Amino acid sequence: MTGTPSAQYRLTVRVKLDDAHGTLLGQITTAVGESGGSVAAVDTVEVDAAHSVRDIVVDAVSEDHWPRIVQAVGAVAGVEVVDTTDRTLQLHLGGKIEQHNKHALRTREDLAMLYTPGVARVCLAIHDDPVKSFQYTIKRNTVAVVSDGTAVLGLGDIGPAAAMPVMEGKACLFKEFAGVDAFPVCLDTRDADEIVNAVKLIAPAFGGINLEDISAPRCFEIEDRLKQELEIPVFHDDQHGTAVVVMAALFNAVKLTGRELSDLNVLVIGLGAAGIAVTRIMREAGVQHIVGADSRGALHVRREDYLDGSLSPAKRWFAEVTNPDCRSGSPADVIDGTDLVIGLSGARVLPADALARMNDDAMVFAMANPTPEVDPEAAAPHVRVMATGRSDYPNQINNVLCFPGVFRGALDVRARAITEEMKMAAARAIAAIVPEEELREDYIIPSVFNRDVAPAVAAAVAEEARASGLAQAGPEVGFAHGETSTSTHAPI
Amino acid sequence: MTGTPSAQYRLTVRVKLDDAHGTLLGQITTAVGESGGSVAAVDTVEVDAAHSVRDIVVDAVSEDHWPRIVQAVGAVAGVEVVDTTDRTLQLHLGGKIEQHNKHALRTREDLAMLYTPGVARVCLAIHDDPVKSFQYTIKRNTVAVVSDGTAVLGLGDIGPAAAMPVMEGKACLFKEFAGVDAFPVCLDTRDADEIVNAVKLIAPAFGGINLEDISAPRCFEIEDRLKQELEIPVFHDDQHGTAVVVMAALFNAVKLTGRELSDLNVLVIGLGAAGIAVTRIMREAGVQHIVGADSRGALHVRREDYLDGSLSPAKRWFAEVTNPDCRSGSPADVIDGTDLVIGLSGARVLPADALARMNDDAMVFAMANPTPEVDPEAAAPHVRVMATGRSDYPNQINNVLCFPGVFRGALDVRARAITEEMKMAAARAIAAIVPEEELREDYIIPSVFNRDVAPAVAAAVAEEARASGLAQAGPEVGFAHGETSTSTHAPI
Repeated sequence: MTGTPSAQYRLTVRVKLDDAHGTLLGQITTAVGESGGSVAAVDTVEVDAAHSVRDIVVDAVSEDHWPRIVQAVGAVAGVEVVDTTDRTLQLHLGGKIEQHNKHALRTREDLAMLYTPGVARVCLAIHDDPVKSFQYTIKRNTVAVVSDGTAVLGLGDIGPAAAMPVMEGKACLFKEFAGVDAFPVCLDTRDADEIVNAVKLIAPAFGGINLEDISAPRCFEIEDRLKQELEIPVFHDDQHGTAVVVMAALFNAVKLTGRELSDLNVLVIGLGAAGIAVTRIMREAGVQHIVGADSRGALHVRREDYLDGSLSPAKRWFAEVTNPDCRSGSPADVIDGTDLVIGLSGARVLPADALARMNDDAMVFAMANPTPEVDPEAAAPHVRVMATGRSDYPNQINNVLCFPGVFRGALDVRARAITEEMKMAAARAIAAIVPEEELREDYIIPSVFNRDVAPAVAAAVAEEARASGLAQAGPEVGFAHGETSTSTHAPI
Repeated sequence: MTGTPSAQYRLTVRVKLDDAHGTLLGQITTAVGESGGSVAAVDTVEVDAAHSVRDIVVDAVSEDHWPRIVQAVGAVAGVEVVDTTDRTLQLHLGGKIEQHNKHALRTREDLAMLYTPGVARVCLAIHDDPVKSFQYTIKRNTVAVVSDGTAVLGLGDIGPAAAMPVMEGKACLFKEFAGVDAFPVCLDTRDADEIVNAVKLIAPAFGGINLEDISAPRCFEIEDRLKQELEIPVFHDDQHGTAVVVMAALFNAVKLTGRELSDLNVLVIGLGAAGIAVTRIMREAGVQHIVGADSRGALHVRREDYLDGSLSPAKRWFAEVTNPDCRSGSPADVIDGTDLVIGLSGARVLPADALARMNDDAMVFAMANPTPEVDPEAAAPHVRVMATGRSDYPNQINNVLCFPGVFRGALDVRARAITEEMKMAAARAIAAIVPEEELREDYIIPSVFNRDVAPAVAAAVAEEARASGLAQAGPEVGFAHGETSTSTHAPI
């Protein structure tokens, strides 16, 4: 079994040992290692005079790898395998988020203030002044994570029920990194009208809408219509989260390689939601020379599907604003002379040797997951700056650097929308987390676990919202959820 | 200012005292009492050698009462009022519920198991077997509290945004009493089709739907359609929660007064959602003689609005199964010879002296809030068993005795629906909490804070679901959220 053992295939093997003192554990660790796994932890379950029960927590390469590891452990003399547990599934039992009440409800006085009859006064306050929703309800701090399950991770169209674990995970990230409450709204429809209507109907509870894993081209229409019809921020993370983090990486990559954005020659591979959005933000930042390729090759205004009108509006726009020379062919055919290749498509669509035809100090952001567009090891000789979507290579481009802070900032100032300027401010804030003196080829983007990122992004987004007049609340609702008592002064 | 001071009008008065030792506090308490308020607590904020700052927590009779109390406190020599805070509004700041992550997300291993790439395996498990939604997502333990804000408390049609504090409060009660996670879904529409469709679309995240404060007659149609179209329990609490708790009280009241349900003469005042549902459950329990009255008086099949077809289907049904003698007139006109009056209408619709014409051992459940259909003090001479919806009289009939336990039981066994039999089992379970030897006129129903109620209701509902074949899960998912590891055994 080849490959790197990973926590995603973590297995707990419960063993009974003819040994109270753990002297067999060394042999077990050796057996796991020889079978290609890796021991992540050992927990003692129970011990008596002659035996012990231990949980051996093992990382494997795949599910198929598990039986070999378990067999190797069971083959050690004095070891009996009692049970095995899939740690990832176990962590998902009952879901990953739960509700927490902010106040105890233990006495009649609690009930009278938090529910009836006292709550009626709060309802009337909102009825008299609807903006008080942001003061007295969860709307202030709550985002809907909305998906129809049509474009989930690399899994594609798996439907709303199967998408739930991803949306719950997204909610966990919102809370963990930015203190934003989020709730998964997995919609049992693929109809754009129904999605738009459902989100509008449930909007009273929410201060923001994060669209997620909705396939193109419907995602464009759905986001555009919701932005027009709702007074709260709507943000399709697959587009804009990706665009912001790519832009952050690019700001630092051009700084490192001494380039100007306006001089760059860029090849974008993959023209789905992310590819379109990355192109938009690069153009706003001043990138002028872009060629894009989808599964039919390089896109331009003389391509048949442009001429026959079968392209989606988003791709028509792309064709019209890029590739004026109408270069055509596969990505490898149009790579000559590019400075930057951005991959947002699928595994291994680009042969590594094609990278040799890029300009010096080549930059490659190959973000297909789990298998990048080009093998990073094979690409290395041709490339100065390499980024991927994976955590096990340097320069991981991960949306979690963006969306928690963006919504934190927008909610803090009750921004009406998340504008292009706010996204650009977020990208600059992420880039600025890497100090100029620490900038290097394998460190152009901060770690997803860098806790400075979300507050910096939130501050930048809030400042931009205030500067552009889109902020509807003062600074009293801050990152730390500070509350002032001024807002509940009794009317004496 | 007359009336009883209540926590719903609780005010915090921050005072600066020319006194470090609190000797002025007695005078402040006296001043509050003389102005009609009541001191609930005193907290020390800061103290120096010559002064102290204290928070005087005061219950008042109404908002209008506050200035008088504050003036009285400020008039005490050596006391300066610094600030006042409305405690009820303060407790609602930012809403009453929040999201909590069940697992920390602090390392790459956490991320690999809880989010990408590990989560993909969980998604596929659900995609392959949709019932696993109940195992690996929040669906197992999460209920939507759905309202359109058209019939909120006694406030009427205040809209979805203003209804949020009530729905959040309901969510708090679900969690506090039964460990059920709930989320407020306040829909920005009054159209029954749109409500039904929105609830169907968001259903993948939820294990149950609690409809709340939707006005009649739409509430009947909405519930009926959702019950037909969803595979999870749908329960309109204003109907069935009320019906279950009234039925529980009635089981004990007839036991106390030595009657048979089949002999009872009942007058139901108010034929909205609750009045109809209470009538249905009483008929199922064997009550045969019922007369109902709405704002046009007693209902029967010769009344003009029955004959001209303008009645709603629910009221037509009511007319057809009750009042065969076509008694007509106001509630006071048809009260002669009744054993039980159930009020689910409005304040003081019944003169107390009319109760003298009821049979001996009269029972009156007057549940209009905050002002019952008949004044309990004035009714006392004529009535043996009196119940209201209020917490400050004996025998409070409150839905919180029902809905947390009902959904707990339904979720525990993954019941497909909440049937009439399950509701009846819940009513018997609530009634049984009052031991027969403790049963008395002012104790026919347990306190809303009796922590034995929800588990007893949950057990009864789950047992009935199993007995009737509606349970889809075994007992391993219990009240205590016990999880077995069997469900995540690795496929070795």
